[in-house]
Amino acid sequence: MKGPAFVKKDKYNVAVVGASGAVGQEMVKILEERDFPVEKLSLFGSERSEGKSAKFRNQKVTIQKLAIEPTSFDGFDLVLSSAGAFVSKQFIPVAVERGAVVIDNTSAFRLDPAVPLVIPEINPEDIQKHKGIIANPNCTAAIMLVAVAPLHRKNRIKRIICATYQSASGAGARAMQELENQTRDYLEGKPLRKEVFPHQIAFNLFSHDSPVSESGYNTEELKVIQESKKILHDDQIRIGITCVRVPVMRAHSAAIYLEFESKMTPREARKILEDAPGVKVVDEPQKGHFPMPIEASGQDQVLVGRIRDDGSTENGLALFVSGDQLRKGAALNAIQIAERLINIQR
Amino acid sequence: MKGPAFVKKDKYNVAVVGASGAVGQEMVKILEERDFPVEKLSLFGSERSEGKSAKFRNQKVTIQKLAIEPTSFDGFDLVLSSAGAFVSKQFIPVAVERGAVVIDNTSAFRLDPAVPLVIPEINPEDIQKHKGIIANPNCTAAIMLVAVAPLHRKNRIKRIICATYQSASGAGARAMQELENQTRDYLEGKPLRKEVFPHQIAFNLFSHDSPVSESGYNTEELKVIQESKKILHDDQIRIGITCVRVPVMRAHSAAIYLEFESKMTPREARKILEDAPGVKVVDEPQKGHFPMPIEASGQDQVLVGRIRDDGSTENGLALFVSGDQLRKGAALNAIQIAERLINIQR
Repeated sequence: MKGPAFVKKDKYNVAVVGASGAVGQEMVKILEERDFPVEKLSLFGSERSEGKSAKFRNQKVTIQKLAIEPTSFDGFDLVLSSAGAFVSKQFIPVAVERGAVVIDNTSAFRLDPAVPLVIPEINPEDIQKHKGIIANPNCTAAIMLVAVAPLHRKNRIKRIICATYQSASGAGARAMQELENQTRDYLEGKPLRKEVFPHQIAFNLFSHDSPVSESGYNTEELKVIQESKKILHDDQIRIGITCVRVPVMRAHSAAIYLEFESKMTPREARKILEDAPGVKVVDEPQKGHFPMPIEASGQDQVLVGRIRDDGSTENGLALFVSGDQLRKGAALNAIQIAERLINIQR
Repeated sequence: MKGPAFVKKDKYNVAVVGASGAVGQEMVKILEERDFPVEKLSLFGSERSEGKSAKFRNQKVTIQKLAIEPTSFDGFDLVLSSAGAFVSKQFIPVAVERGAVVIDNTSAFRLDPAVPLVIPEINPEDIQKHKGIIANPNCTAAIMLVAVAPLHRKNRIKRIICATYQSASGAGARAMQELENQTRDYLEGKPLRKEVFPHQIAFNLFSHDSPVSESGYNTEELKVIQESKKILHDDQIRIGITCVRVPVMRAHSAAIYLEFESKMTPREARKILEDAPGVKVVDEPQKGHFPMPIEASGQDQVLVGRIRDDGSTENGLALFVSGDQLRKGAALNAIQIAERLINIQR
């Protein structure tokens, strides 16, 4: 796969693949919100979404069926993909071959040593190393690391322990609908239908619904562990994580425990986080006001609070974060990568 | 406060204080379910619940207003209290003075060195040291420790890290109703009413709604830390905890990380837990079947699963637990204490 030299222009032909999905819809919305220099926007989806449409700058854009043929991708400068790892593996090499740079939101290429895996607040320098593909991280990794990386940079973190509270949106638009439908049926005393999640999600929670490996860790947990090391450029950091799905619509939260090489006081950490890009400190103990999914939803920033000593170990610090899974966890991060690629600084 | 020598009888006069609350109702139900040798059951509540009634063995028992006068407690052998710490502090010394043994579900006396704090599966020997009061632990501590103590006994645990997923029931019957009402209003697009919780609970989660101390820890977290040390008879164990309220009805869950003095393999831990009283191992990685609140609800046992190495530290092990907050977290544990007190072995 040869990498194109990305040619700077005034405006770009942009494609969104997986345009009818929860992340794809958010991508279209954010391209408009942030006034991304789009010459022409094309939307692709599966057979199921062919003919549906999305609104972009007051124009109706029809979703085309993704055909994996070289000519399908002619003329695109930038492809934003959120189509599932299997589809990504098929179409992305073809799109790159035809000259597009692809920012891929799936796990397909994230751990490929030739593919940068980027959170612009953390490792923007990796963007320019791309050979046609830039990978967007797992949503939980992105949200956790926006808060963790600035601390790690000041005082090396040796170990992270994390327990997540992940929203339905992480499993897509149909999963969000399932949470709503099941909850409605539950309240009306009707039998609950399970189509997306393997277990009841209404008024329940369960270990993340990704396959569990021999090690006892599920794929989601392994993604966070492996991707965090790559993004932080730190193979030595040790990560323990439990990923849990909760009946929340679209923001992920996490309880995080950090062990530093030397003492990091809550006051120091708060100061670092207040100055960190992409972070909003929400930490008002007197008011009992800390990060919550409903306040993180629709926000670009990751909310961080409950910043306190973890007295259970030397040099320990505890945090709680909430971040919009569809924005910083997916669509926003992808478009922030695109902005850096074309040299927009915000 | 003088302690009565508890006189064994065939049947006992039992009072439940706080009988209209979520825990009080569960206590009445469990006394009947387990065929506790009750001679006469009396129910007490606040002014608000005076005149309401509960069914016990097909009889309607009317709730009387609790009057804190010595004569109110004449003739009771056993008082099960779940009336709030403030009320407990007032009435319990009076009841003990009149000869009752009180099993108190509030935090009022839990840390009093003269009062045993008991989980019957863990420290039943402490029951007989009572001087009239036996304290029932915090619900999260009870659920966590049922799973943790049997492992600790085999191989000392130096450190526990815990992140909780706590149900509405922990804040009482009105909180469970609030979760239901808010969810209904949310789905109908109506404004949400907050009467019990400080924040929206429907499709949301938030840091536990107890006051936050100078240390940054809330009261719930401090209770778990302090009570765990007392129940395990281990002042050295270090505990880091984050307590979070989730939109679940009546079972608490927790992601738990344990650091042992020496290696504890997942296989060993599973074997110990399979033999442990009060524990049910639910750990089927192939099926993605692990502890969930909807399966823990109404159960006496604490469900334990996701038993795996915590590769982020030496001698680390991770678990996930779910337990019925109203049963093992409160009412059931109290009645199990009462059973041990009168020498019923199950």
